[in-house]
Amino acid sequence: MFPLPQKECREPATCLGSASPQDMGRYCRGDVEGECSRRAELKRPELCGVGDPIAMFSSASSCLSSRGRVIKWFWDSAEEGYRTYHRDEYDEDKNPNGVINLGTSENKLCFDLLSRRLTQSDMLRVEPPLLQYPDWRGHLFLREEVAKFLSYYCKSPLPLKAENVVVLNGCASIFSALATVLCEVGEAFLIPTPYYGAITQHIYLYGNVRLAYVYLDSEVTGQDTRPFQLTVEKLETALQGAKSEGVKVKGLILINPQNPLGDIYSPGELQEFLGFAKRHSLHVILDEIYMLSVFQESLEFRSVLSLERLPDPQRTHVLWGMSKDFGMSGLRFGTLYTENQDVATAVASLCRYHGLSGLVQYQVSKLLQDRDWINRVYLPENLARLKAAHTYVSEELRALGVPFLNRGAGFFIWVDLRKYLRKATFEEETLLWRRFLDNKVLLSFGKAFECKEPGWFRVVFSDRPQRLRLGMQRVRQVLESNPK
Amino acid sequence: MFPLPQKECREPATCLGSASPQDMGRYCRGDVEGECSRRAELKRPELCGVGDPIAMFSSASSCLSSRGRVIKWFWDSAEEGYRTYHRDEYDEDKNPNGVINLGTSENKLCFDLLSRRLTQSDMLRVEPPLLQYPDWRGHLFLREEVAKFLSYYCKSPLPLKAENVVVLNGCASIFSALATVLCEVGEAFLIPTPYYGAITQHIYLYGNVRLAYVYLDSEVTGQDTRPFQLTVEKLETALQGAKSEGVKVKGLILINPQNPLGDIYSPGELQEFLGFAKRHSLHVILDEIYMLSVFQESLEFRSVLSLERLPDPQRTHVLWGMSKDFGMSGLRFGTLYTENQDVATAVASLCRYHGLSGLVQYQVSKLLQDRDWINRVYLPENLARLKAAHTYVSEELRALGVPFLNRGAGFFIWVDLRKYLRKATFEEETLLWRRFLDNKVLLSFGKAFECKEPGWFRVVFSDRPQRLRLGMQRVRQVLESNPK
Repeated sequence: MFPLPQKECREPATCLGSASPQDMGRYCRGDVEGECSRRAELKRPELCGVGDPIAMFSSASSCLSSRGRVIKWFWDSAEEGYRTYHRDEYDEDKNPNGVINLGTSENKLCFDLLSRRLTQSDMLRVEPPLLQYPDWRGHLFLREEVAKFLSYYCKSPLPLKAENVVVLNGCASIFSALATVLCEVGEAFLIPTPYYGAITQHIYLYGNVRLAYVYLDSEVTGQDTRPFQLTVEKLETALQGAKSEGVKVKGLILINPQNPLGDIYSPGELQEFLGFAKRHSLHVILDEIYMLSVFQESLEFRSVLSLERLPDPQRTHVLWGMSKDFGMSGLRFGTLYTENQDVATAVASLCRYHGLSGLVQYQVSKLLQDRDWINRVYLPENLARLKAAHTYVSEELRALGVPFLNRGAGFFIWVDLRKYLRKATFEEETLLWRRFLDNKVLLSFGKAFECKEPGWFRVVFSDRPQRLRLGMQRVRQVLESNPK
Repeated sequence: MFPLPQKECREPATCLGSASPQDMGRYCRGDVEGECSRRAELKRPELCGVGDPIAMFSSASSCLSSRGRVIKWFWDSAEEGYRTYHRDEYDEDKNPNGVINLGTSENKLCFDLLSRRLTQSDMLRVEPPLLQYPDWRGHLFLREEVAKFLSYYCKSPLPLKAENVVVLNGCASIFSALATVLCEVGEAFLIPTPYYGAITQHIYLYGNVRLAYVYLDSEVTGQDTRPFQLTVEKLETALQGAKSEGVKVKGLILINPQNPLGDIYSPGELQEFLGFAKRHSLHVILDEIYMLSVFQESLEFRSVLSLERLPDPQRTHVLWGMSKDFGMSGLRFGTLYTENQDVATAVASLCRYHGLSGLVQYQVSKLLQDRDWINRVYLPENLARLKAAHTYVSEELRALGVPFLNRGAGFFIWVDLRKYLRKATFEEETLLWRRFLDNKVLLSFGKAFECKEPGWFRVVFSDRPQRLRLGMQRVRQVLESNPK
């Protein structure tokens, strides 16, 4: 049901948490934003369920600790797609035959708007407190602004409070800190798959916390169901499965809008999942980082913060950041919202390692405060561009006769290329992925999201029209030259 | 010789690493920049060497993991001085009776120069790569600039290389990452005491790595010796002591210029310490964060990067940042320089949690590049102001008849107030510290630096003349009302 070692390591220094050698394979293929897709078979451990899983790292890197070698291995194993892309990055003028990146989930559509706003004179303010040691939870002026911003855009029934806000340098850091303060070494969070694979590392590298997968599949079983639909029944089964393996599950991670599916949970579904968590005293970590990237007008996204009553507010923790909705993954801004002051304080205690510059805190507060620009300039234009790009790629896929999930949120389309595999294996999936890369277009394969069905790919569409056109042309070339 | 549990915990989730319950007392009193001094006796654990050291955290914070409770406890225990200061912060106009902070090691002397430079138009540049996922080692343009900067200011015999540079959001993060990739859980670094106490947390909170103390004392034993002098003999003794306790020591941490002593190691001493490390295959982490804050002209600081030949370059790792030398602890910029590519890569793999904004990376690169401003404007003025402030506090101390170490580097003076204690105990030291705080001046007591002799205090002088005068007046009032 999910990757677990058959027998627990007692000695953490030589223990991979959830990782049996076989599981290392799973771990290594998480989708890593900024590092594109990974090579599936690269350095796949050969040992299988016996001996010391660290042993395989012992020959090289003799100066590193065993966990240091594992940490380095995560970096190295991510390299093939990333290296290829960065060695040969597409540039319209300088390198028109370079690799087009439709693998990394970044919004590259609104640089003009952002650049204009970020270079306005109000962005460059330098006051003594901004250059001095901050309140590690984040400057109060910023936390107040975040609380107002989330109250407004999440439509919270009551104003949210600055004291429940902790500011960090990105949501990766929030996952790392939350995992560490909520779980013991080796404990787990439930997560429905397919999911944004980098979370595997975020909770593991420092925290030694693992994931217990709730595997979803594409089969539609009834009138009101959809592919990869999460249900309480599936959550219960996965939880019981973990228990029967002796694994302590401490929480549930939900990504909403979902990455890579683009799905949105309805308020009713949210309440059911929260109810399930409460019954089992599980924390719920809600990653709502795409909450403002819902470009289909007919859809209504409901943040968990909009609910009239949370079943278990002390165990409900919300993540948001500017990487996606404001197209600035390089800004490194993420925020945790939690009513649990113990959790907020414990995370703050780790913020010394996740702090962001006072100058950036000031800039973010100015941006979040500028409702006029957000509501009249940025959001409408951004959503229109996302929609146009989504429409373009959807039509291309339709023209190719390729099935896909037609959703209205996020930066990506979840595409069913199963018919292009000669056999339904992840090896075949990797081969197809490499054919795309050889044809200079980088995609993410389903295994990186722990999808249980080989042949699904995530195609990012939030790029500029010219690059998108060329990227889709290259996708088409591969698919047309490679019928089943 | 250093804090170690008498018996090892097998279960890391409920293990404090180096911390026996008694040691928790030691841990809790690290000097934490930005949080001023801590309360020595606050929540001192009553259990002693028996049972589960985590048990004391069990009653409260039931939503947190055991390590989460310990992490939160570090935050809470730091609060007395910090809260008092921030509740009642001195302001010349608005709160002239507020607390003056001579406890936090920040340079507040050059805000005018920094503010002028940072608001110049070249600081606000927004390019697409700055807003996108970065190379997690740091943008290449910045790493190149850092390599040039360190080559020049550290006087390296050969040009330093960008590939050996990893950029993080402060040196706290570098300690955290290095500890994790170099050590197994429960292993240790040697560190001479007194030392900058926050390192305890930096290597422990995420990394579960502990410190093995090399206790130094103030006694001068011969003509060429100085108080708190580190020698190879003392290093050897401490290392053997650790071994005899069954503790694996993986490295040595050296702070140069030293905090809190203000001492500088000579090139000969450096070579001896590096030689010792090489003989025992120990990593050496050199924290040179005060390297440009040497204000006594007669002193020549020698960076380890200036040495003709490093005994063990693969195990020598240098830290620097802008918090101290450029008076910008709120900027969150730190850099690791290491020739060991395995270490650089493993740290880079953790940089997803320690990244800094692309906009700040750009600003830092512009600043480091501006040699004209650094050499003609900033450095001369900063050093002159540091020297004047140091002279002022030194003279005040002399007038009071208080012994102190008269050094020429850093932002602080290490002051001997032993004669003001009724008994030579740390309880008495804390009482004196609280009398200062009651009289509205915050200092750091020696126990926060793990000084073995009660009665030493660190007085920070890098503040503006008006605040410094008032702070020293308040110090004088306490001492004159409190003769032994």
